[in-house]
Amino acid sequence: MALKRKDLLTIRDLPGEEITLILDTAESMKEIASRDIKKVPALRGKTIINLFYETSTRTRTSFEIAGKWLSADVINISTSAASVAKGESLLDTGRTLQAMHPDVVVIRHAAAGAPQILADAMSASIINAGDGAHEHPTQALLDLFTIRERFGRLSGLKAAIVGDIAHSRVARSNLHGMRKVGMEVRLCGPATLLPRHVESLGAAATTKMDEAIRDVDIIMMLRIQQERMGSGLLPSLREYSRLFGLTVERLKRAKEGVLIMHPGPMNRGVEIAPEVADGPYSIILDQVTNGVAVRMALLFLLTGGQPAAARAAAA
Amino acid sequence: MALKRKDLLTIRDLPGEEITLILDTAESMKEIASRDIKKVPALRGKTIINLFYETSTRTRTSFEIAGKWLSADVINISTSAASVAKGESLLDTGRTLQAMHPDVVVIRHAAAGAPQILADAMSASIINAGDGAHEHPTQALLDLFTIRERFGRLSGLKAAIVGDIAHSRVARSNLHGMRKVGMEVRLCGPATLLPRHVESLGAAATTKMDEAIRDVDIIMMLRIQQERMGSGLLPSLREYSRLFGLTVERLKRAKEGVLIMHPGPMNRGVEIAPEVADGPYSIILDQVTNGVAVRMALLFLLTGGQPAAARAAAA
Amino acid sequence: MALKRKDLLTIRDLPGEEITLILDTAESMKEIASRDIKKVPALRGKTIINLFYETSTRTRTSFEIAGKWLSADVINISTSAASVAKGESLLDTGRTLQAMHPDVVVIRHAAAGAPQILADAMSASIINAGDGAHEHPTQALLDLFTIRERFGRLSGLKAAIVGDIAHSRVARSNLHGMRKVGMEVRLCGPATLLPRHVESLGAAATTKMDEAIRDVDIIMMLRIQQERMGSGLLPSLREYSRLFGLTVERLKRAKEGVLIMHPGPMNRGVEIAPEVADGPYSIILDQVTNGVAVRMALLFLLTGGQPAAARAAAA
Repeated sequence: MALKRKDLLTIRDLPGEEITLILDTAESMKEIASRDIKKVPALRGKTIINLFYETSTRTRTSFEIAGKWLSADVINISTSAASVAKGESLLDTGRTLQAMHPDVVVIRHAAAGAPQILADAMSASIINAGDGAHEHPTQALLDLFTIRERFGRLSGLKAAIVGDIAHSRVARSNLHGMRKVGMEVRLCGPATLLPRHVESLGAAATTKMDEAIRDVDIIMMLRIQQERMGSGLLPSLREYSRLFGLTVERLKRAKEGVLIMHPGPMNRGVEIAPEVADGPYSIILDQVTNGVAVRMALLFLLTGGQPAAARAAAA
Repeated sequence: MALKRKDLLTIRDLPGEEITLILDTAESMKEIASRDIKKVPALRGKTIINLFYETSTRTRTSFEIAGKWLSADVINISTSAASVAKGESLLDTGRTLQAMHPDVVVIRHAAAGAPQILADAMSASIINAGDGAHEHPTQALLDLFTIRERFGRLSGLKAAIVGDIAHSRVARSNLHGMRKVGMEVRLCGPATLLPRHVESLGAAATTKMDEAIRDVDIIMMLRIQQERMGSGLLPSLREYSRLFGLTVERLKRAKEGVLIMHPGPMNRGVEIAPEVADGPYSIILDQVTNGVAVRMALLFLLTGGQPAAARAAAA
Repeated sequence: MALKRKDLLTIRDLPGEEITLILDTAESMKEIASRDIKKVPALRGKTIINLFYETSTRTRTSFEIAGKWLSADVINISTSAASVAKGESLLDTGRTLQAMHPDVVVIRHAAAGAPQILADAMSASIINAGDGAHEHPTQALLDLFTIRERFGRLSGLKAAIVGDIAHSRVARSNLHGMRKVGMEVRLCGPATLLPRHVESLGAAATTKMDEAIRDVDIIMMLRIQQERMGSGLLPSLREYSRLFGLTVERLKRAKEGVLIMHPGPMNRGVEIAPEVADGPYSIILDQVTNGVAVRMALLFLLTGGQPAAARAAAA
């Protein structure tokens, strides 16, 4: 079985069996990180463009390392101060880049749907590295990988996702992904930050954190965007932290052995207490490590790699 | 025959036979882009520095891909917010970089003549990737390559270049290049944006677009710098577009089979109508594709590659 | 003998024999720069992250070239406009990067001690590429290499370091380094810019330049930070230049054959006259060339390379 798609734009459109294929392939890739020589020739002669319209140290670095360990050529294009190509439309940027024959374009953009525009315009594979409040599918894949690695399975597990659900692409992609693999999801946050009709997405929703975390296997804390404070959507930092912060005290009410996740970067002392972030239940750094493996798997599969070859490539 | 120069600073100083040599070598290189493994070892162990004092997604990416496909090490230095080396003079920057033994430095700079300063200070090969309103020789070379690819020849063809001629390094380099290979050139734009004494350059000049495009084989539209609007040099965008924009309607008055070029990025609906940019006569994306091939050829030849070896390297 | 440390944070803590080991290894590396193919496989499959919180063309480029010539994968992370990872603490950035399994992280930071924080948090090797006014150990190592290359020895030589001693990490690292290898050091600058208790560091201090440069073998001029002018610490540029600038006239009072050094970038006409910077006694560009070799040696040794293997690797 191979990946039946040119692009990875959303988790929502990814069948469960393709999720499994990606996670299985990532297992083969993960071992490469612990080698003395972290390099396999699988993507030699392939060109990957990292097209980042929003700043991101973590995700861009993760994709760049993934590409380079696979021996691909990696080109970074970022748009900090100046605009990409002097105000050229995304469509024209996509067509222009396509004319240079890249194999994969990884895009992060503030506008939901931007990766779809590239995918339609380009024959290269497009990977969505986060588009507005829409999706961040590789984050959800690495989260699922990390959960599966710890529990040995996904189906039947219960997760609470806590924070600014309405504006979070991480929450959205994880909700879709977790549902597809048979997990149960509870969403928790201030009423102003819970999307309407959330139950129609197949998740329970609550504004009470103690209720949300009771008897779940995983608590996934979201980063609070401090720039939203004072917008009327959020109480003060102190109030937010009191109601929705994951503290040692609150963690006592959760299940024994519950695992703590966070997509990073963390606001220590706001949504998560330092003792929890660094405590024995935290698998936050595993998420980062697994991010490289999952992205290697995706790059490999989208450029035509066969799962069996992944084991050989990694061997 | 080999390239008889250390640097590529202008088209003006490049003999016709060296233009032909570069275009011929680019033909060998172009095929690499369509391979499954886009990588040849020709420049392994060579170091290329992309020194960009002006933002440029397109040209920088094109050079970076060209270098990497040839297996060179490519180092990007850009000067967005902060100045290069805290206000160090270009001459000192050049001497400092030279001390690190690069093989090629690609420079883009707002000041005409900046590449010459580097060329005098460094034993590395310098490629001018655009200096002020002076020259942009690799753009002209890729344009000539694209024209030759379509018509099978260059000599005797007629081209109209339309837009802000006075401030355009693309126009200047193309004018010199086209004249050298035996093409006939007409320049067209508002009277305020036509350089004086343009006829002494061997080109006809007109402010009437219909006259400019009549019976030419190629229409090359220039990007209008919107920041020049309101400077007194240019009418309003609407007026400019009405007088000098390439529309479907206007195109009907051109020769059957005329080819449309644009160096990008385009202002769609200003200097060029979307239907024309994306229409059957447009070879705008071919220009981008050929840009990589032409730059590969240049990098190869300037680092001592022999034309015969280009065919072997690409084989 | 191998390097007995995970990190290079300071010269102060580096024993003289390890300095010698690095300089000896750099000799093997230097020859690579003059080859036709500047590439050895020594660090293939190793990952180096250049984490620059301050702009630096020269040092970042030097490390990037050093890594690439050794065949390492080099990842650049810089924080110009946007903050690294949205305000994440350096400690969390370090832990996050560690989770991606780099072999070396090169850090430049405005705060003294920042590299130590990374070193404590990461199992990767940390190289301090300049931290506030604290240390810049690779600069001192390349300076010692350059001096040794010219004189054939270090012990017994006398050096004057002139400029804003109090705020200079270059001065601090060189002072420690020179003392360790048996050199005699004189520090010279305006009284406001000489650190207190300087004599306890084992150096003589003076505010009189003629006295400082008399009979020394090396004069090392520091870059004056023009943004400090008008702060009350410094006289006017003209006054500074008159009192502490190295001019042809002043140089006549120095020893025959004295060598002139500067870490760059230079303020020509302020701390150093152009005729001196470009004159026969200047070894300023040798410093730049040797910087690549010294950084190659460090990257090689810190990733477990054996000195004997360095000669083999370079052979």
